[in-house]
Amino acid sequence: MVASLVIAGEFGMTLGQREADGKGPGMEPKLMPKLGAAEIAEFLDQVFPQLRGQMVIEEVGPMRARLRMPIDASHLRPGGTVSGPAMFTLADCAFYVATLAMIGREALAVTTSLGINFLRKPVPCDLIGEARILKLGKRLSVGDVMLYSEGDDRPVAHAALTFSIPPWNLG
Amino acid sequence: MVASLVIAGEFGMTLGQREADGKGPGMEPKLMPKLGAAEIAEFLDQVFPQLRGQMVIEEVGPMRARLRMPIDASHLRPGGTVSGPAMFTLADCAFYVATLAMIGREALAVTTSLGINFLRKPVPCDLIGEARILKLGKRLSVGDVMLYSEGDDRPVAHAALTFSIPPWNLG
Amino acid sequence: MVASLVIAGEFGMTLGQREADGKGPGMEPKLMPKLGAAEIAEFLDQVFPQLRGQMVIEEVGPMRARLRMPIDASHLRPGGTVSGPAMFTLADCAFYVATLAMIGREALAVTTSLGINFLRKPVPCDLIGEARILKLGKRLSVGDVMLYSEGDDRPVAHAALTFSIPPWNLG
Amino acid sequence: MVASLVIAGEFGMTLGQREADGKGPGMEPKLMPKLGAAEIAEFLDQVFPQLRGQMVIEEVGPMRARLRMPIDASHLRPGGTVSGPAMFTLADCAFYVATLAMIGREALAVTTSLGINFLRKPVPCDLIGEARILKLGKRLSVGDVMLYSEGDDRPVAHAALTFSIPPWNLG
Repeated sequence: MVASLVIAGEFGMTLGQREADGKGPGMEPKLMPKLGAAEIAEFLDQVFPQLRGQMVIEEVGPMRARLRMPIDASHLRPGGTVSGPAMFTLADCAFYVATLAMIGREALAVTTSLGINFLRKPVPCDLIGEARILKLGKRLSVGDVMLYSEGDDRPVAHAALTFSIPPWNLG
Repeated sequence: MVASLVIAGEFGMTLGQREADGKGPGMEPKLMPKLGAAEIAEFLDQVFPQLRGQMVIEEVGPMRARLRMPIDASHLRPGGTVSGPAMFTLADCAFYVATLAMIGREALAVTTSLGINFLRKPVPCDLIGEARILKLGKRLSVGDVMLYSEGDDRPVAHAALTFSIPPWNLG
Repeated sequence: MVASLVIAGEFGMTLGQREADGKGPGMEPKLMPKLGAAEIAEFLDQVFPQLRGQMVIEEVGPMRARLRMPIDASHLRPGGTVSGPAMFTLADCAFYVATLAMIGREALAVTTSLGINFLRKPVPCDLIGEARILKLGKRLSVGDVMLYSEGDDRPVAHAALTFSIPPWNLG
Repeated sequence: MVASLVIAGEFGMTLGQREADGKGPGMEPKLMPKLGAAEIAEFLDQVFPQLRGQMVIEEVGPMRARLRMPIDASHLRPGGTVSGPAMFTLADCAFYVATLAMIGREALAVTTSLGINFLRKPVPCDLIGEARILKLGKRLSVGDVMLYSEGDDRPVAHAALTFSIPPWNLG
């Protein structure tokens, strides 16, 4: 029930946080990623070889990541638009990368829910996914991903995601 | 990432389960509620006194619950329809009751997400919420609630919910 | 705002409806599909050739459809589980078939939102998707899809979908 | 089906749009609100008198709005946190105001779906809702609302909403 919303043992990291670790107001938060784009790309190649070459990690930052999905004929549908599963895959991976960067390589974050609103028809060019973590707890990572066609700043889709972080990663 | 969807230590209870606890096919599952409607009602009166009188627990069963929300003028909107927050409240409480019945009184389940599709205008009579748990894990309870106006079997809204079960309840 | 939830010109078809077209209680509703499984399969082959062979329409009924996705190596992820995009695709297609069956071949229903909760790890066998329409209006089709691994009645995922039905189809 | 995502007759207004109405790059978009905060507040008081005094429209801008919900004892739950229905109400109203500002007073936008992720326990002070429209079509308004406790820039909840805009408003 919402009424008693308290999640135990949370990291206390959320988007926009201005204080952390008991430091006073105005101190910079300790939200630096543990992993960079290259390290995560290498890790993904090992763990998810079937995704190799499908996406490029363009940038990883505190509580966020930007990925690019080069679009070719296999992603297209009649009319030249990008398929729904391709958009789903990019949203899922972008949020995975953002989360992995913060919690580290050993971590196994798994998607528990993904809700996506389709806003407009993507054009047949590269798809960009911008992920941000809104709340990183010990057990859940929650946030959203905005999807764009490259060169157009109008979003084509918006996804809200929740990942579960299994306890064995937190030792 | 969905690709590696394994949630550690799950109870393994889901809707429709026909086997459990290592018993062979055809054995009845061990999915009986730990608490009945009266026990939960008493517990809710203590913990959420502000909800007293707002809802009636009509039935509690394995992985499900049915609640009634008597509708009076305070729930209505112009045109005689039931307000969105009233529907939200009933969905949230119905799933809370279904979950509490299974995990027991000590447990503090908290709503982590609620998505609701509004299907048709409720008429100004009692609202019924039928909750079912689709997956009860050690850390998450996931399911849905169908909302009806009494006497009409066409749903007025459908909600999908995820509750987090804090670890201290699992001792 | 929820408060004034009235959608103009709805068909008035929802799951569970027991009366229709002004007929008295006990009359069968007029909810028969306009298209059968074979007709829809032929239509899909023409319109979405890239999906050919990926799914089998097992059954189409009033406000519902059941599809099967034969699972092969291309759908699998490490550990032998079915990929998230494969589950997304099956949920999307199953609800498309259920909607198309009701509104007819000319219709172009397009996904506006899809929310999916992942419940448990699918085993590496065929995936079944059971779609039901909860509300079929003139402009929106709203419902859900339960996904199963064949031979196991515990759901692996549950999706809630909304499709938009463009006005030109309603002439 | 996502594969053919084209929505007929859309306004073509989305967040971040840089061009509009056939004008060249660099031209300002025609996304100015039709109504200001005071006009909308007056309209709401007439149409939803039961909400009077519950929320303050702090700001209305192109494709966005910010509302404040003064929190008093009636919104609180044990532990001093704000209730789920109060958060639902603020998210719903904030997106309604953002949409109404763009489409005008005569319009009846109705909530078709609302998905909310609860991120952290709100503290017992005023709640702020920041709504943005991601896509404003002729028939749907789609976007999100971030909820904050005043004075804390960490979001307490994030909601994704879809409103239907009935056709009679578009004459």
